Amino acid sequence: MIVVLKKDATIEQRGDLIEWIKSLGLDVHLSEGKFQTVLGLIGDTESVDEELIKGLSIVQSVTRVTEKFKKANRKFHNDDSVFEVNSNAGGVTAGVKIGDGNFLVIAGPCSVESEEQICAIAESVKASGAQMLRGGAFKPRTSPYDFQGLHADGIELLVKAKKLTGLPIVTELMDLSHLKYFDEVDVIQVGARNMQNMELLKALGKTGKPILLKRGLANTVSELLLSAEYIMAGGNEQVILCERGIRTFETATRNTLDIAAIPVLKELSHLPVIVDPSHACGIVRYVKPLSLAAAACGTDGLIVEVHNNPERALCDGPQSLTPEQFADLVKSVNRVREAVNL
Amino acid sequence: MIVVLKKDATIEQRGDLIEWIKSLGLDVHLSEGKFQTVLGLIGDTESVDEELIKGLSIVQSVTRVTEKFKKANRKFHNDDSVFEVNSNAGGVTAGVKIGDGNFLVIAGPCSVESEEQICAIAESVKASGAQMLRGGAFKPRTSPYDFQGLHADGIELLVKAKKLTGLPIVTELMDLSHLKYFDEVDVIQVGARNMQNMELLKALGKTGKPILLKRGLANTVSELLLSAEYIMAGGNEQVILCERGIRTFETATRNTLDIAAIPVLKELSHLPVIVDPSHACGIVRYVKPLSLAAAACGTDGLIVEVHNNPERALCDGPQSLTPEQFADLVKSVNRVREAVNL
Amino acid sequence: MIVVLKKDATIEQRGDLIEWIKSLGLDVHLSEGKFQTVLGLIGDTESVDEELIKGLSIVQSVTRVTEKFKKANRKFHNDDSVFEVNSNAGGVTAGVKIGDGNFLVIAGPCSVESEEQICAIAESVKASGAQMLRGGAFKPRTSPYDFQGLHADGIELLVKAKKLTGLPIVTELMDLSHLKYFDEVDVIQVGARNMQNMELLKALGKTGKPILLKRGLANTVSELLLSAEYIMAGGNEQVILCERGIRTFETATRNTLDIAAIPVLKELSHLPVIVDPSHACGIVRYVKPLSLAAAACGTDGLIVEVHNNPERALCDGPQSLTPEQFADLVKSVNRVREAVNL
Amino acid sequence: MIVVLKKDATIEQRGDLIEWIKSLGLDVHLSEGKFQTVLGLIGDTESVDEELIKGLSIVQSVTRVTEKFKKANRKFHNDDSVFEVNSNAGGVTAGVKIGDGNFLVIAGPCSVESEEQICAIAESVKASGAQMLRGGAFKPRTSPYDFQGLHADGIELLVKAKKLTGLPIVTELMDLSHLKYFDEVDVIQVGARNMQNMELLKALGKTGKPILLKRGLANTVSELLLSAEYIMAGGNEQVILCERGIRTFETATRNTLDIAAIPVLKELSHLPVIVDPSHACGIVRYVKPLSLAAAACGTDGLIVEVHNNPERALCDGPQSLTPEQFADLVKSVNRVREAVNL
Repeated sequence: MIVVLKKDATIEQRGDLIEWIKSLGLDVHLSEGKFQTVLGLIGDTESVDEELIKGLSIVQSVTRVTEKFKKANRKFHNDDSVFEVNSNAGGVTAGVKIGDGNFLVIAGPCSVESEEQICAIAESVKASGAQMLRGGAFKPRTSPYDFQGLHADGIELLVKAKKLTGLPIVTELMDLSHLKYFDEVDVIQVGARNMQNMELLKALGKTGKPILLKRGLANTVSELLLSAEYIMAGGNEQVILCERGIRTFETATRNTLDIAAIPVLKELSHLPVIVDPSHACGIVRYVKPLSLAAAACGTDGLIVEVHNNPERALCDGPQSLTPEQFADLVKSVNRVREAVNL
Repeated sequence: MIVVLKKDATIEQRGDLIEWIKSLGLDVHLSEGKFQTVLGLIGDTESVDEELIKGLSIVQSVTRVTEKFKKANRKFHNDDSVFEVNSNAGGVTAGVKIGDGNFLVIAGPCSVESEEQICAIAESVKASGAQMLRGGAFKPRTSPYDFQGLHADGIELLVKAKKLTGLPIVTELMDLSHLKYFDEVDVIQVGARNMQNMELLKALGKTGKPILLKRGLANTVSELLLSAEYIMAGGNEQVILCERGIRTFETATRNTLDIAAIPVLKELSHLPVIVDPSHACGIVRYVKPLSLAAAACGTDGLIVEVHNNPERALCDGPQSLTPEQFADLVKSVNRVREAVNL
Repeated sequence: MIVVLKKDATIEQRGDLIEWIKSLGLDVHLSEGKFQTVLGLIGDTESVDEELIKGLSIVQSVTRVTEKFKKANRKFHNDDSVFEVNSNAGGVTAGVKIGDGNFLVIAGPCSVESEEQICAIAESVKASGAQMLRGGAFKPRTSPYDFQGLHADGIELLVKAKKLTGLPIVTELMDLSHLKYFDEVDVIQVGARNMQNMELLKALGKTGKPILLKRGLANTVSELLLSAEYIMAGGNEQVILCERGIRTFETATRNTLDIAAIPVLKELSHLPVIVDPSHACGIVRYVKPLSLAAAACGTDGLIVEVHNNPERALCDGPQSLTPEQFADLVKSVNRVREAVNL
Repeated sequence: MIVVLKKDATIEQRGDLIEWIKSLGLDVHLSEGKFQTVLGLIGDTESVDEELIKGLSIVQSVTRVTEKFKKANRKFHNDDSVFEVNSNAGGVTAGVKIGDGNFLVIAGPCSVESEEQICAIAESVKASGAQMLRGGAFKPRTSPYDFQGLHADGIELLVKAKKLTGLPIVTELMDLSHLKYFDEVDVIQVGARNMQNMELLKALGKTGKPILLKRGLANTVSELLLSAEYIMAGGNEQVILCERGIRTFETATRNTLDIAAIPVLKELSHLPVIVDPSHACGIVRYVKPLSLAAAACGTDGLIVEVHNNPERALCDGPQSLTPEQFADLVKSVNRVREAVNL
């Protein structure tokens, strides 16, 4: 950690600071310049609160040299993580592998609505190449007057679809008190709004299930990795990172897909990185181009909204593809992946 | 709600959409232009999902004319809300009023550390004019390796300080499972990271205690009001809104205080609006100018970090004022408020 | 244009506003609701200043239904624009086509440094498939103490490289007073910082040369199209739009490439859209994945920084590929384009 | 400057880099850690391009310790700058002082429309306490179809108002080719869109007139100071910095006033800092609270839009106060300044 002191810091103030830093078990290397003094902190600076130092009146700036995330850090774990999801349904024994070249396609409706709906979609997305089924049971809605999901009943319906198709299921956990309903859920999703719900993350570190961790609307890639670290620090190292768009001034799309986050995250961490093009743009006709872009850019997978409601197609969700559109998307994505990997 | 259709929408598609809208119990007013058709939706559009309509392939844009928040809306509740917080400690009967001209000053340390610390700060901020005591017991930290607070023990220490000084206490709730420790907490704080933790908001709607709701880092004022609506829809109308800075590209301060949010929120809603200058900037020397700015701009109160640790002052938190600085700040704030209200 | 009036607007105020709108040659359709009144403005609203109306005390919101850009608008010009750049050098007669399926690769160094440098790069990028040569002669630098470019001499060197290779040349115009040096420049670039330099845009509308218009750091796609409209309104319809990243809170990359801007722009406008991956990320190892993403997402071309300085490769610009890396990038981009267009 | 190398940098690569840095005339201090190596660059690093170093494949991060701006830097010029504007009109000899406690109020219409309009406004704002007159002659409009100003005729009208009232005049320069019309303009304004129009800034460094430099929509305070440095490096040290709101995701106001930029800029630089509340919010009813906030926060002045068009008041610009509102604002601002300075 590099601490730059202001030129008007007195020798006494400087001495006090250095003494305090040493009391934390660190060494200090001092280098004096004409207009400022630079302190290099040497040792295990992981637990040093840089905000605290930054706030001192004699400090001009603080730069952390070592990232605060360890278990998620590629520096200490050079190979790509790969882990396997085993659906315990219907005699299906072959697991779905994630990471290190195993491309993962998760598909399903925004909300679970009925057994008929979720089973039909599950069958159709399986036929088109999806390896997991998604569907919202507990829904985080901005307004209290919007539909809030079927809750535990929704999860039961997902489990029926899993038994029918053998597809492992992914659904969002919004509150720890709901965890009791998640026994048969194969991958637990943490939504963007909960990315920094630290109590939730800590508890998920004890579950032993793979966690799909979505990036928050206003969170940096570093913060995403620190949230992954919360889960991993608890003992659960099966974290799938998910880029799903960040909030910017542009309003033409709901969010701005940060496509560069894919190579950035893969460089900083060994964890698999997938992309949610549906929530990133919020407009169905852009889902395919964004999926192709993500595939070309090196994503380890996609999570895509698909509906199955021909008689009401006009009014269906803005982010959802029809099963036909989804099948076409998967084919194109595979062609792009081949082209990139040649 | 105004829906603009693309010029290539067919008569059939248009008809289907209108029929569906009418099935929701709304009337539709149609107006055809040369390059687009405009539909005006008339009736109770509150529960209509505009994102869903926006996503239809024939729709160019959707504009909501009526806000989705009702209980928080000044349109339906013209007078400023005012509510009273009664500390049930030590025979103190006089309550603290919030809103409608009652200026609220909340002060205290970032974290509760010891009985000695919190009691000393409580006494000194009371002497300087604070009407409530704040202090973190459960701490939301970006990194799992940072200090996470004293938890239930911290709340016990806050209660001791309340009994000593008569000051009602405010502290942050991070997870519903901790609510059992909050019996003697007078105002429950929802942190910025939890502003859209909908399950938490719903549960707080049942508590009957005033809620201090902080704006999320990337949330608009409309979203803040919808989060307040979640609490109010549950029956608890005592919500204090708190502007604490938003995330922008500027890095000179930790966040960017959106000072205009004060008049905007007060125009849209009858709820009291307070400002947290400490978290907005993250740098102690800017806390006073930002507090004065907020007072001049019409805030109903301030929540300020104050420490009391002379022997370690050099290394104390970046956002915290000393008791002396806090006393000076309160005096200046009062002078500015008088100047504005003349 | 839809104008929503506040519920406390008096009949007189409403009448005055309607009268004034009619005096602008528009019709007004009025629809009264319980809590607000909605005015629909019918006619040519292009020149109506919505900011002016939005500021009236009786107005709650204003929504523009028709975009303000006309010549750039796909609504009025359904087919993709395609135009040809003819380098008038060295007897080369075959022009370079842009738009409507003609993929354009522009490559070259950040700055023109010497005849040797620019000629060597020109030859190598031509051999790898570039159709145009870029190079900075006038450089917009954030600090006055950074290298400002070779100015007119730089353009002369570009012209030499053009004569040698037959590649048309693209370079940035920073001020109208430099236009006199641009006679032999084939495509004039407007940099991100000048996207709203309206006087420059107006003058370029008179030049008859294709303009490469970069999106500003904080500008929406609508504003980019309005800037294109400035050029086109002057009579020059040869505008190439360029997405090069926007400024967000994320600092892992220099800017955030808004990959969705490609399909958004192509839907709203008939103009060709290219991507600058080099400036979007600022880090050479991300240039290839971003280029592939852009190709997969439907870009009409790329503008890429390439250097040619093996003996100083270590210290060369962060955004620049070596000629070998560029050749590899072009091959991969072509494979991705084929995969997408199958 | 601190350069952190990645752990996989070879000894040869490291040696090459150090050699190159030394060739720039700098010393290098090397400190090896377990997971990275830190280089401290010692000497005049002002002209070292950190982006270039950041881009090297062996470099993890670069931190500049010394700011790149020198003439604008308070480190090298501790006292507040103060300079005087002398209107050379009508025998008025007393100048207007700016900076170091001299509070500057500039007022006037968005656009100059007629002699009658500008002269009436000039008289009324002078009576209410304005010390300078503003008015747009050349207007930067987002759309080519909006009113573009009266150009040179507008400046002539401003000069008439100056002769009538003795108020020095401020107006925006959009292009160097217009500079010939600015002889009698007392303060030249650089608009937000031109903050990084480097050629314009360089030319203004030669004018000898005070420059009112507005912060760009997406520019940091550091970049604003570097733009000031462009002007000052040319010999003109009379630069007034102006905070006028930045672009964020919030749409309730046109821009987000970065109120903390006032103390930040005043700490980093000795130049005077003023605030434009009219453009920051775009809504007339928020102009007063934002002006009071700025005054409480330590601004050195305000630039406010005032119109004078009672018969058309309904339809006047959204950001403009009436003369009566302006007079009331000045009184309140003065009371707040007194309260703060007690």
